[in-house]
Parts: sequence; structure tokens; C-alpha cells
Amino acid sequence: MTPSLAANATGTDRLEALAAERYRQPQHLGTEWNETIDTLLSHRSVRGYLPDPVPHAAVELAVAAAQSAASSSNLQAWSIVAIEDTDRRNRLNAVAGNQRQIAQAPLLLIWLADLARPRAIAADGGSAGEGLDYVESFMLGVIDAALAAQNAVVALESLGLGTCYIGAIRNDPEAVARELGLPEGVFPVFGLTVGFPDPAQRADVKPRLPQSTVLHREQYGDDVRGRDLASYNRALRSFQSEQAMPGIDWTDHVRNRIGTVEALKGRHVLAATARKLGFPLK
Amino acid sequence: MTPSLAANATGTDRLEALAAERYRQPQHLGTEWNETIDTLLSHRSVRGYLPDPVPHAAVELAVAAAQSAASSSNLQAWSIVAIEDTDRRNRLNAVAGNQRQIAQAPLLLIWLADLARPRAIAADGGSAGEGLDYVESFMLGVIDAALAAQNAVVALESLGLGTCYIGAIRNDPEAVARELGLPEGVFPVFGLTVGFPDPAQRADVKPRLPQSTVLHREQYGDDVRGRDLASYNRALRSFQSEQAMPGIDWTDHVRNRIGTVEALKGRHVLAATARKLGFPLK
Repeated sequence: MTPSLAANATGTDRLEALAAERYRQPQHLGTEWNETIDTLLSHRSVRGYLPDPVPHAAVELAVAAAQSAASSSNLQAWSIVAIEDTDRRNRLNAVAGNQRQIAQAPLLLIWLADLARPRAIAADGGSAGEGLDYVESFMLGVIDAALAAQNAVVALESLGLGTCYIGAIRNDPEAVARELGLPEGVFPVFGLTVGFPDPAQRADVKPRLPQSTVLHREQYGDDVRGRDLASYNRALRSFQSEQAMPGIDWTDHVRNRIGTVEALKGRHVLAATARKLGFPLK
Repeated sequence: MTPSLAANATGTDRLEALAAERYRQPQHLGTEWNETIDTLLSHRSVRGYLPDPVPHAAVELAVAAAQSAASSSNLQAWSIVAIEDTDRRNRLNAVAGNQRQIAQAPLLLIWLADLARPRAIAADGGSAGEGLDYVESFMLGVIDAALAAQNAVVALESLGLGTCYIGAIRNDPEAVARELGLPEGVFPVFGLTVGFPDPAQRADVKPRLPQSTVLHREQYGDDVRGRDLASYNRALRSFQSEQAMPGIDWTDHVRNRIGTVEALKGRHVLAATARKLGFPLK
């Protein structure tokens, strides 16, 4: 049962309603309400889009927000490719297993860990850029791209647009690299569909684990894990039922998703693929 | 020269001023202004804090925002440890090379890629959780943690708090894991200092690369890279001079930061360390 959320409500009532949607169990959030918090807590992934194009001004704004995120040592080790061309989008969708949201969204952003730029800068100064050869630098590029992308998501949602992350482009990063003409040292981390949400395909806010499961104080403790997962299975079952989705316990979903090599849908070769794409991963 | 930014300005003027601060060269942002966009574009990392503690309600809000970020297949493969204890903070600061912001901030959040939770869930169902042994799953946990952390940053900034990411905890992830009592399969991705910014140590917005350098359309192109970097070196030199920081071209900074193995400050063994901490990285 979704709590009533008056669209024009603000303040404590609205904050409590947002927390109730997100957790479906008691969760106090004792701060002041503001518009930014409302945008963040209201997030839902959008898989049904109207055909209207995304204004170029919204993309510029999203990129400015993305660039405003922190970057490790200000290396800015990421880039983005914005794809509107339908044929290119369809070819990329084949990599991702033909998802409805990619077929419908007028814009697909591919977020890249970009070590080609620092590598070229090093080369200009006569250096091989040896530090880039390590797992640490790959991870740095991935983190930079993720922080940037999340800021873009928040900015786009504040403008009334919807988004959905597409991890499935990692099913075949080599095919994505070919399609986008990526140079050596650039890795496609994830995609992001963007568009105006179709009100006829509206998704609700997905419940998450209780805060006690993810937030530890001073040291990591795991004694409460079992109890919290049972209540979360129930919360997610309610959500699935309301959304007319097939019902499955979250714990079973997790087992299915990570239980076998086959469940990774080709991503078990990601390390070898990254090496082919110019990341030695030492 | 920082453009004038009236604190109570809204609308197009304010948006243009924020873009001018971020880019220090012409950059059109043709959308409507809103409070969320203002929060995002105004970001600066805060390295000087007042001693006042961070209200617990702000942490709850930050975690709710973090949990509202997208999570790959809803695996929620991340956790967080909140550290207020001064002695523990100081010991972690030794790993990070004794940084002023860690010494000053009343709260340090350590963001964790957490595959211990899905591993335990798999084990409960009699599965080894084989899919977790691959680089893909490590990367998934890192991305989940990064998306969550960035939402927390935006929420905290909307409440008037400041933050600074601490990648330097990766200088010795084993020491961090011991200090926090991390179980096998949990990796410390980065830290985040949180506190009320000290107005006497106020930092300005750091300029970023021109959008044309990071945003590609349809395919990756690299022809404009050289020209953009020269103008960016100049923009960053101006910023450094205003902030009384030592002046260095960004391109030289990049070369220094990634040019050698030594510049990684111990992080060249990150793959071996991750394996010790329970990530086979197949």
C-alpha cells in the first residue's frame, strides 16, 4: 500500500511519506524538507518513455551537473557519448538483450571510464603513464564516471525527465567500443536511458533494505542481517504485487542473479575484455 | 575572477553565473533554474570544518538518499560505516597520509563494496555464489557504492553540510578492513568527510574541462582535445592563484599523478589486496 503523497505537500509530512514509500516500515527522517531532498528520495527508474526528444539544453545541464561532481585528484577520468540515432541505439540494445527502455527512450548516454585522455597527456610529456596500468586506475575511472552519472540523473529528474541505468552494456563491452569508435583505454561502464516518463507506464518507488542493514556505526556488525532480510522480502513482495510483477523473495532474486557464472550473461570475461580494450589491470 | 553570485538570485542569471564559475569560459545552460540544480552546480569539496557534530538526523537523511539511488539489479551491494570516534578517525587518517580534512571533520563515512551480504544470502540457499568471484561483481559493488555516496553528498550539501571524498583510504585497504572489522568480501572503496564548512576556510568552485572535451555525440571523437586542454590549463591557473595554491598546469598535474608506479602511493597492489579481502577477481 503506497502512502498518500499530495503532489504539492512540503515539510515534515511529505518527508515522512517519502520515507514510508522507500522503506515500507518505520524510518524516521528528522531533517527539514527541501526540494533537493524531495528529488533524491522520489527516484524511481523509468522504463516507459514518451517519444518526445530530450532538449539539448537538458543534456548540457546534465553534463554540467556531472562535471560538478567530485573527481579523484581532479583527473576527470571519464567521458560520455550521447546517442540519439535510432539504428545505433538498436544495435547497442542488441548487446543489452533488447530492453524495452532502450527501445523507447529517445536518448541513450554511455558513460565511459576514460584513461585515454590522461594517457595522451602523459605521452605529450614523454611519459608512458605507467600508473594507468593498474586496477586502481581502472577503478578510479569507474568511480569518476559513476559519481558524474549520478549527478546527471539527479539534475535530469529535477527537470521532470526519467532515467534508467543499463549495466547490460557490459555483456559485451568490445561490441560497444566498436560501435562508438572508442580509442584504447576507454571502457563503457554503463548506459543510461533518458526521456520524458510515459504517465501510462508509471513505476512506483522501489523499497530498499532497512537502514540498519546498510548503516554501521564505528565498525561493521552483521548480527541484525537475518531479521532485516525477512522484513525486506515482505516489503518487496508487496511492491511486486502492486506493480503486477512476478512475485519473488529478494533473497531468491539475489541467489539467482549471482549464484552461477551463467547468470552473469557474458560478464565473467570482463577482465579479459578490459585488457583487450587497453587496461592491463596489473 | 569569480562572477558575482547574489546568494538570493534565482533564474537564468543565477544559472549563467554558476556555469561561468564552473567553466570560466562561455557555456550556455538553457534550462530553467531550480534549487536542486543550484545545489549540484555549486558543489565544492570542503577541507576546512567547524568542530560541531553532524546531527544524526542528517546521517539518516543521507543514507535514505543513498539508498534511493539506483542499484544494479537491486542487489544493493554496498554498506557504510559512520565513524565519529576521534581515535579511530586518527588511525584511519594515518592510512590516508594525515589529511587536514580528516583531522577536522567530525564525521567520516567509509563506503564499502559489500559482496558479503549476497554471499551470505547465497550460502543460506546452499549456493557458493559463484558469480561473485568475478571482476564484474567487484565492479558492480564499487558502482553501487559510488552512486549511493553521490546521492548522500547532494543531500548533505542541500542541508548546508560539506563533504570531501577520500580516495586515499585505498593506500592500504587491509588496514582499513582491520580497523572496521570488515568480513571477507567487503572492500573499502573511498571515505567521505562530513561536517559544517568553516566559513574562514571557504573554497571556491573548481573549474572543469570544457563540455566539448567530455561530451561526444554518437561516437567518440578526439580532435578537439588539444585546444581544450590549453584553455583549461589557463582556467585552473587562475583558480589556483585566487585560492593561494601553488600554480601548476593541469596537464602537468595529470602527468605527476599517473606517470609512475610510485605516484599511486601503494595502490599498485590493490588487485592483490582485494584478493586477500575475499574478491577472487576472476
